[in-house]
Amino acid sequence: MKKVVLAYSGGLDTSYCAKHLSADLGYEVHGVTVNTGSFTNDELTEIARKAKILGVADYRVIDETQKYYEKGVKYLLFGNVLKNNTYPLSVSAERVFQAIAIAERAKKIDADAIAHGSTGAGNDQIRFDMIFHAICPDKEIITPIRDNTLTREFEISYLQSHGVEGDWGKAAYSINQGLWGTSVGGKETLTSDQFLPEEAFPFQVNEQEPISVKIGFEKGEALQLNGKSYRAIGLIDELNEIASQYGIGRDIHVGDTIIGIKGRVGFVAAATLIMIKAHHLLEKHTLTKQQLQIKDQLAYTYGNLVHEGQFLDPAMRDIEQFLESSQKHVTGEVEVLLAPYRFQVLGVNSPNDLMQTGFGSYGEVNEGWTAQDARGFAKIFGNQTRIYKSLHDE
Amino acid sequence: MKKVVLAYSGGLDTSYCAKHLSADLGYEVHGVTVNTGSFTNDELTEIARKAKILGVADYRVIDETQKYYEKGVKYLLFGNVLKNNTYPLSVSAERVFQAIAIAERAKKIDADAIAHGSTGAGNDQIRFDMIFHAICPDKEIITPIRDNTLTREFEISYLQSHGVEGDWGKAAYSINQGLWGTSVGGKETLTSDQFLPEEAFPFQVNEQEPISVKIGFEKGEALQLNGKSYRAIGLIDELNEIASQYGIGRDIHVGDTIIGIKGRVGFVAAATLIMIKAHHLLEKHTLTKQQLQIKDQLAYTYGNLVHEGQFLDPAMRDIEQFLESSQKHVTGEVEVLLAPYRFQVLGVNSPNDLMQTGFGSYGEVNEGWTAQDARGFAKIFGNQTRIYKSLHDE
Amino acid sequence: MKKVVLAYSGGLDTSYCAKHLSADLGYEVHGVTVNTGSFTNDELTEIARKAKILGVADYRVIDETQKYYEKGVKYLLFGNVLKNNTYPLSVSAERVFQAIAIAERAKKIDADAIAHGSTGAGNDQIRFDMIFHAICPDKEIITPIRDNTLTREFEISYLQSHGVEGDWGKAAYSINQGLWGTSVGGKETLTSDQFLPEEAFPFQVNEQEPISVKIGFEKGEALQLNGKSYRAIGLIDELNEIASQYGIGRDIHVGDTIIGIKGRVGFVAAATLIMIKAHHLLEKHTLTKQQLQIKDQLAYTYGNLVHEGQFLDPAMRDIEQFLESSQKHVTGEVEVLLAPYRFQVLGVNSPNDLMQTGFGSYGEVNEGWTAQDARGFAKIFGNQTRIYKSLHDE
Amino acid sequence: MKKVVLAYSGGLDTSYCAKHLSADLGYEVHGVTVNTGSFTNDELTEIARKAKILGVADYRVIDETQKYYEKGVKYLLFGNVLKNNTYPLSVSAERVFQAIAIAERAKKIDADAIAHGSTGAGNDQIRFDMIFHAICPDKEIITPIRDNTLTREFEISYLQSHGVEGDWGKAAYSINQGLWGTSVGGKETLTSDQFLPEEAFPFQVNEQEPISVKIGFEKGEALQLNGKSYRAIGLIDELNEIASQYGIGRDIHVGDTIIGIKGRVGFVAAATLIMIKAHHLLEKHTLTKQQLQIKDQLAYTYGNLVHEGQFLDPAMRDIEQFLESSQKHVTGEVEVLLAPYRFQVLGVNSPNDLMQTGFGSYGEVNEGWTAQDARGFAKIFGNQTRIYKSLHDE
Repeated sequence: MKKVVLAYSGGLDTSYCAKHLSADLGYEVHGVTVNTGSFTNDELTEIARKAKILGVADYRVIDETQKYYEKGVKYLLFGNVLKNNTYPLSVSAERVFQAIAIAERAKKIDADAIAHGSTGAGNDQIRFDMIFHAICPDKEIITPIRDNTLTREFEISYLQSHGVEGDWGKAAYSINQGLWGTSVGGKETLTSDQFLPEEAFPFQVNEQEPISVKIGFEKGEALQLNGKSYRAIGLIDELNEIASQYGIGRDIHVGDTIIGIKGRVGFVAAATLIMIKAHHLLEKHTLTKQQLQIKDQLAYTYGNLVHEGQFLDPAMRDIEQFLESSQKHVTGEVEVLLAPYRFQVLGVNSPNDLMQTGFGSYGEVNEGWTAQDARGFAKIFGNQTRIYKSLHDE
Repeated sequence: MKKVVLAYSGGLDTSYCAKHLSADLGYEVHGVTVNTGSFTNDELTEIARKAKILGVADYRVIDETQKYYEKGVKYLLFGNVLKNNTYPLSVSAERVFQAIAIAERAKKIDADAIAHGSTGAGNDQIRFDMIFHAICPDKEIITPIRDNTLTREFEISYLQSHGVEGDWGKAAYSINQGLWGTSVGGKETLTSDQFLPEEAFPFQVNEQEPISVKIGFEKGEALQLNGKSYRAIGLIDELNEIASQYGIGRDIHVGDTIIGIKGRVGFVAAATLIMIKAHHLLEKHTLTKQQLQIKDQLAYTYGNLVHEGQFLDPAMRDIEQFLESSQKHVTGEVEVLLAPYRFQVLGVNSPNDLMQTGFGSYGEVNEGWTAQDARGFAKIFGNQTRIYKSLHDE
Repeated sequence: MKKVVLAYSGGLDTSYCAKHLSADLGYEVHGVTVNTGSFTNDELTEIARKAKILGVADYRVIDETQKYYEKGVKYLLFGNVLKNNTYPLSVSAERVFQAIAIAERAKKIDADAIAHGSTGAGNDQIRFDMIFHAICPDKEIITPIRDNTLTREFEISYLQSHGVEGDWGKAAYSINQGLWGTSVGGKETLTSDQFLPEEAFPFQVNEQEPISVKIGFEKGEALQLNGKSYRAIGLIDELNEIASQYGIGRDIHVGDTIIGIKGRVGFVAAATLIMIKAHHLLEKHTLTKQQLQIKDQLAYTYGNLVHEGQFLDPAMRDIEQFLESSQKHVTGEVEVLLAPYRFQVLGVNSPNDLMQTGFGSYGEVNEGWTAQDARGFAKIFGNQTRIYKSLHDE
Repeated sequence: MKKVVLAYSGGLDTSYCAKHLSADLGYEVHGVTVNTGSFTNDELTEIARKAKILGVADYRVIDETQKYYEKGVKYLLFGNVLKNNTYPLSVSAERVFQAIAIAERAKKIDADAIAHGSTGAGNDQIRFDMIFHAICPDKEIITPIRDNTLTREFEISYLQSHGVEGDWGKAAYSINQGLWGTSVGGKETLTSDQFLPEEAFPFQVNEQEPISVKIGFEKGEALQLNGKSYRAIGLIDELNEIASQYGIGRDIHVGDTIIGIKGRVGFVAAATLIMIKAHHLLEKHTLTKQQLQIKDQLAYTYGNLVHEGQFLDPAMRDIEQFLESSQKHVTGEVEVLLAPYRFQVLGVNSPNDLMQTGFGSYGEVNEGWTAQDARGFAKIFGNQTRIYKSLHDE
């Protein structure tokens, strides 16, 4: 019997796939849910229960949270990556690690095929396909949802006709929770002119009193919160818990999908945005101008390639080496004010602060150079424009 | 008698310069205040009064506001320029246009020298010097404040000894008001770890109730507010008036000065930040991916060169041509929510919205391409990684 | 009867298409050959003759040479565009203009379909398809060669069976002659380790004695040769005639195709390479450092987008505005030595030479600045590294 | 007695400095010659002899050749760095390592000052100063040649008056021999329009018969020549010996000096140019498109920063990590034809050749994807332009 590995999420689409693959296509279905930090234990139990009802031959959860952080999230933080200066690429990055784990599972059990439930109009299909092609190019990719335009009603009645009952109630908004951000799609995001209403977001504001938190970074990683040490993932969770009470980190991203159309998606990424802005501020104090500029450019490219499913390109590994190297001195504490719907980075405290070296202060009298030095600098720094102007008076 | 043109601001430093240049150095002093949109009429009258008391041979105000907008601010908006993703370069850009006007005045009256009151530890001295060198390379540049380390007390008693009394009371914070943003320096900005207190800012929050405004753009310029047409500068003023009530647009910029040290400066730029974010959102809807990416890179460079006093380099004119061309379809309305200390871009309405073409929607069933097309795309888009992985299993 | 516009080259593949489209698919075939400067009159007569034998309903030559130069080649010269620092993108750029002309012809005659003879393994298919999709998205694209894997023998006997005889002798190398370069593929280019032999190139070396030529540029365009004025295209032809005698401009390009595989293609582009290097030298003398650097980056992107069939993206128009602006002062004469298999740019003569302004010479005593200025510059230019080193002794 | 470390080259200028520092300024002079691979033993002996005649307190040669290669040249090769696409930055890179060695010597012997003989009109003064400021900011920098405009005649008679005779005959061209290239300045390079004559170059052509050589690379470094293993520096020397016979690698660089003026300098860099072009070709076969593009941009920046004396900026270390990572698979053999005044890379042979994977060949029938896949790719790859064109028919 031919084997297929199915990326299974517990939703209606992949539940339909599970049954369709075995009942109609005759596959032995190996369901896999890859956890990249977004599922609670309860949710995982529920998904497993559904998988069992669907009668898959094998089902397992693969926990890739730590790998996702170590090889993905960490570099997004190092690079302060925000697509279009807005979106933390949370879904994009997650999909990559999910796809890799599924492809590796397929190789391990020597599957004949590999299946996912993405539609034909989004980014995820491309990311899944590309990574499957790269890791297990010989395996057929089966995508029932993309290939056949099926209504929810059809899928539900199909499952019922195979004896699978379930509460497939469609939520008003499609929510994709993740370690590095939670996306919120539906209604308003399908048009251009409206923001998401309060209730669209998974957490509502229930703290009004501003507080400040201190995030401690070590070589670019956030490892302390208010003086207490955390593992990196634990800190993200904890900070999310605190900041979600304020409704911080909500926005709508409008971007270019891999397939060329524009897409709009809401998101909330409280810890993520706070950490990126805090990290960025610390970098402004501890990195040189050249480091900041070159890193900005590289991180821009890095983000684009993550977005476009090119994570396995070796250029990404090369960029990661740059990023790693740049974080050597990004150590220190950043204070951040949390308030309803907003946060404000307040300042940093770092042994590597290039602003605090007793060298001379901006706008103040100093000992590092003389007025004469400054004159000479300005004259020579302007030499080329001076020469140009001497020829062209425009 | 030798003539000097002095960039005169009415402050203690340039008042000292005015007297020193005539009394000690024997110059006929031509005081010039360049207004780039930051002075009220009352302020200008007061500055003129002081100039008169100081006995300058000639004093005039040159209004460069429109030129500053047309040749400077406009492109900063087109490029969504925020230095280090934070600071709108308000002071930097203003200095450029002030320096140009002063240099041209010096040429016109055939002055022997040109003077400014900058210290030797900041960016302005370099910007002034560079532009003077470019426009009137033959004129001596006199900078009494930079050359001699003088205390306020010395300057005040020097002026008194020359019969000039005045209220030179030092404010707690040094504030530089401008069309495109107001900088706030002092106390907290001299260290790294603290934010500015409420009272440091020129306007306090006195509106609590959020409102939304609609900004209408035409070819990249903001020309309507809530449906009413404005001249560009008028709109900036009006939007500032509204948004300042909310304390919007405050932040601290930490950056690399032209002279290599790190500097920290607070600022408030309500209209500026709102306009840039609104403009950017409109661009995400109306420009192609390639336009967005290339424009980002170019605008990054453009901002750096403005910051570093290289505004007269012809490369800037070349970039402006690119920016101008890119704005052809950046027309439409953007809605923005204003609330205490924050704003949120809500959505756009544009005839050029590339998301609203009936072409196919993100994540939805579509008619623009088939599942088979998407499969083919993903396969071929991933070809190179697939080939790479076939050689290197790492 | 349904109408199809066929991009017809006179070769075996498109001849097969012409017959196949009418005989098997029932189309009224409108053959079009787009001349972008690569065909002689004799060649065009011969192609027309073949089209007639094939019995196409309509056949015409569209001459796009001038448009190709004005809207394509000119910018490749302004940008000194060499893909991978090697290849002048001659074929890529030509295809774009051919595809545009064909798509516009299809629109004009209200054709139902549009056909090209590209295979499924190259760049041209993508370029044709993309431009057809952009200009006439409603027309079916028919690609018999790509869709059916046909041997030459099959095609020849198919044509014979339809009464079409012809000399379809396959040349040892497939040569694609063009205004901006001639590609040479086959044998050695299919592997990685060998260069093309002398006989693979369309012209052999028959001049041994080096000569020098002077190319006069006006605002970036080459318009004089040895003091004589030419139209731009005429100069390219004339310079090619002279330089081809020396076997100048031969190389092999190894590049990434749009479809992700590596491809290798020989080429000869004598005038092109000479003009680009001469133009670049003139720019080094007449543009500022900033202009050179920013233009390099933009032109790199421009070349990549031409290569990848993205010529119709509006970002290209924006870049062209930059390029146009940058050429304002690129006027002067460049002397170039031509010798067997090589050339050497010798020097320039330009009224806009920024090196010849009496301002101060490299390495020589000068009047533009003092030793003290240089000291000050070096000190301050090095400030940041100095500060960094004071913290981190590594 | 105060100690000064003098960068001593044996030439007239630094000989003058040696005497001037002790006789006029009362320093104990510690002469240092840093060999970065450019001096023969005979030359070093001669320089030592001169130093002795001048009566310096201490003189030594510091051999930094290996360090120069490991920490400098290697990365210039990895990055295929050619300034303005022409010049291998040979002098720039050498100066950096010389300056570092001298500054470290000054620290070691606890010198009070550090001296170099650069003029005030070139790049070297800035590079020396910047590195001295970074490594030993507390030591005075003494630059007699820059500070005093002295004629050769004055220097010679000054030395004679101090009993130092010598043959200070001025050569027609000033030649700066180095491991990574030899610069040639004088006469023609002071103007813009002429190339250097044959006799200006240190080696003349005395081989007419073309030969081919094979260069073997391992992880980006050239370590075999014609199948024989070499240490990296040995291979450069050997290849230079062979290629110099052909007059290969001569050109004139026109560039922007650090101080803003344009400068023109001839050079010959036979091994360097051959190695860079061979290395680049190998990379085209073994790196992905993304690696090539990103590396190009980074290396461009790297080269600019080397040129401008910013080698000690930590951003350089970050870029080096990227470069190092990118070279992982740059292993293989490149064949190069050497002929009078030119060379031609012929082809590569590499186990990591991404073109030779049996995956599908450019322009040929293939198995990696179908015509349908290519159609789908082209359609979706062109989606955005298609959407744009549906709105804007321009």
